Amino acid sequence: MRAWRYRNPVAVHFGWGVLEELPRVLDGRDAVLVTFPQARQAGLEARLRSLLGSKLREVVGDVEPNPEVSWFASRYAGFWKRNAGCALLAVGGGSAIDTAKLLQVATKEGTFESLRAVLASGGQPEVAAAFPLIAMPTTAGTGSEVTPWATLWDRSSAAPRKYSLHTERTWPEAALVDPSLALSAPAAVTRNSALDALSHSLESIWNVNSNPVSDTLAVEAARTVIATLPGLLADPADRRLRTSMSRASTTAGLAFSNTRTALAHSISYEMTLRHGLPHGLACSFTLPLVWKLAAGVDAGRDAVLARVFGAEVERPWAKLAAFMREVGVETDFSAYGVGAEEARRMIELALGGARGKNFVNPSPRLDPSVA
Amino acid sequence: MRAWRYRNPVAVHFGWGVLEELPRVLDGRDAVLVTFPQARQAGLEARLRSLLGSKLREVVGDVEPNPEVSWFASRYAGFWKRNAGCALLAVGGGSAIDTAKLLQVATKEGTFESLRAVLASGGQPEVAAAFPLIAMPTTAGTGSEVTPWATLWDRSSAAPRKYSLHTERTWPEAALVDPSLALSAPAAVTRNSALDALSHSLESIWNVNSNPVSDTLAVEAARTVIATLPGLLADPADRRLRTSMSRASTTAGLAFSNTRTALAHSISYEMTLRHGLPHGLACSFTLPLVWKLAAGVDAGRDAVLARVFGAEVERPWAKLAAFMREVGVETDFSAYGVGAEEARRMIELALGGARGKNFVNPSPRLDPSVA
Repeated sequence: MRAWRYRNPVAVHFGWGVLEELPRVLDGRDAVLVTFPQARQAGLEARLRSLLGSKLREVVGDVEPNPEVSWFASRYAGFWKRNAGCALLAVGGGSAIDTAKLLQVATKEGTFESLRAVLASGGQPEVAAAFPLIAMPTTAGTGSEVTPWATLWDRSSAAPRKYSLHTERTWPEAALVDPSLALSAPAAVTRNSALDALSHSLESIWNVNSNPVSDTLAVEAARTVIATLPGLLADPADRRLRTSMSRASTTAGLAFSNTRTALAHSISYEMTLRHGLPHGLACSFTLPLVWKLAAGVDAGRDAVLARVFGAEVERPWAKLAAFMREVGVETDFSAYGVGAEEARRMIELALGGARGKNFVNPSPRLDPSVA
Repeated sequence: MRAWRYRNPVAVHFGWGVLEELPRVLDGRDAVLVTFPQARQAGLEARLRSLLGSKLREVVGDVEPNPEVSWFASRYAGFWKRNAGCALLAVGGGSAIDTAKLLQVATKEGTFESLRAVLASGGQPEVAAAFPLIAMPTTAGTGSEVTPWATLWDRSSAAPRKYSLHTERTWPEAALVDPSLALSAPAAVTRNSALDALSHSLESIWNVNSNPVSDTLAVEAARTVIATLPGLLADPADRRLRTSMSRASTTAGLAFSNTRTALAHSISYEMTLRHGLPHGLACSFTLPLVWKLAAGVDAGRDAVLARVFGAEVERPWAKLAAFMREVGVETDFSAYGVGAEEARRMIELALGGARGKNFVNPSPRLDPSVA
């Protein structure tokens, strides 16, 4: 019964074809589109140009997966000065939306290096100006459309690092969630994105920042991902299933927007940096293991987690592992080329990381069978 | 699978004793307290004076139940000019919070008559200035701490009327929900407030504006009210039950903040105006009847409603009626001095009202057994 807080100011507009509402959401403002190269190939950029006409001031179309310092260095200075008065329109997966958030804020100095330096020092920038942001996800998984955070990768030094931007100004003003935009995603992207959403849900539950509102949303989201994903992989064009998955992803976003993630994400950063695993896979293949480590620590957490599969399931992590295998995901580190010893060290390191410290079990027993 | 929206920008701070966080939430601003006379008797006003010291600029301590035009006429002009730069702090039940919302907005003309006139004409005011509002409920039921609406009653003409204020500026900035503040409520207030929250939950489900986020929150809230109220009435000092009820009330508020209410509330306005029934009772004694009228109209709605008592319960409205009787509430109009013919006319009138039009069944069959 400890005190808790919940707030999420993002206006969610959800529905098949809701993309068409964009001009009304922009309400007369000019827009700068931040998107990924495939948006052009898939015809999405053309569709947005046609919808926005002369209101589309600029297109930043070369967003890369996992936004990195070097990409911004040449683009940032001038970007926000050039486009003053515009709204940013981020269209893509988590990387496009995160990139837009990093472009969104202007530091006092007006250079990306000043932003990088404050993030590298563990701080957050003093925001001198910020664009309003409208986020339109093209995958069902990121949740970034309803959170104020962006991840920035820094491979400029010998030891690659990961920074997190988090300011009051980087909440999107609106999220336009149009499930039809995910139709063209390859099967692996559909699956990994869905598992990212599942990870957001569960990580917001076994989290020291959990609260009753995030719990309610997280359980709903986790149940929906599990009920939807196998069918969606079998029939990727199914409109009802696409809609359910997009809804689950945004709902998971609403949940973890107020808790952040926990141990599975903390482990994932190493797996992505060192082993190149795609984010959705990296933050989900450990979910059965992490669930096992979370179990029995706090009766309240156990009760909320039990709602995912029902209280009658005794070892829910085993049921989750079976689900993961059903959708083609191995849940052992060894399947990703990581030995037992390295895995144990990675988990220990991850427990001490910023997200690892959100995990409800600060010092789990890592027996040999764990990895 | 129609399109939907959800947005609620209110920062919820929840917890036993969270009242103490008020200075931090005010963040240096002066405050004007809007509250009801019993707050002084209960020592709450003194506690706030001690907490806020010289930051407490003014106390409006004579808020009346069901805010009425005549009360505002002499108080409104000058109020917002005198207190520019302050935050309004509403402490009380729905009436205190609604009163603060009505004081919160300044029209261009600066008179209450201009506000009344635009509301009477069915419009909403052009807001020239608005105070930030911090809402602190002392009952678990209103939900007004997380909605942008206020109800205003007008008994100045022969036929009494009810207006609804609803502007973008009347969302509270923050809701401080401290379950301990409800400890001093009389049993009838505890019960009627809880039933108001239950009504908000169910009315947001059998609503044409329902959406998956409000549904998820509403089911959780309804289940919690039903599981908590009998025990709370038996042991009003139980801290865990008080906390659950306050949580259910705010969660129901988050749900109906994006749907508004429906038929049961539409009926309630007549019962309050004509028969003087307290709001919580007026908007809840018809819930079993309204549930019956909602059933079978839309499979999606039926499925969400089935989650309240479980899908195995065949006539959930009968189960709800039994619950109502268990907490001492009669569910027949006749118990409130309303005959079958008057009840039928009242329901028909209510179906055509603004909230009645939100009800999923626009033309239910009102057989003789209905009332």
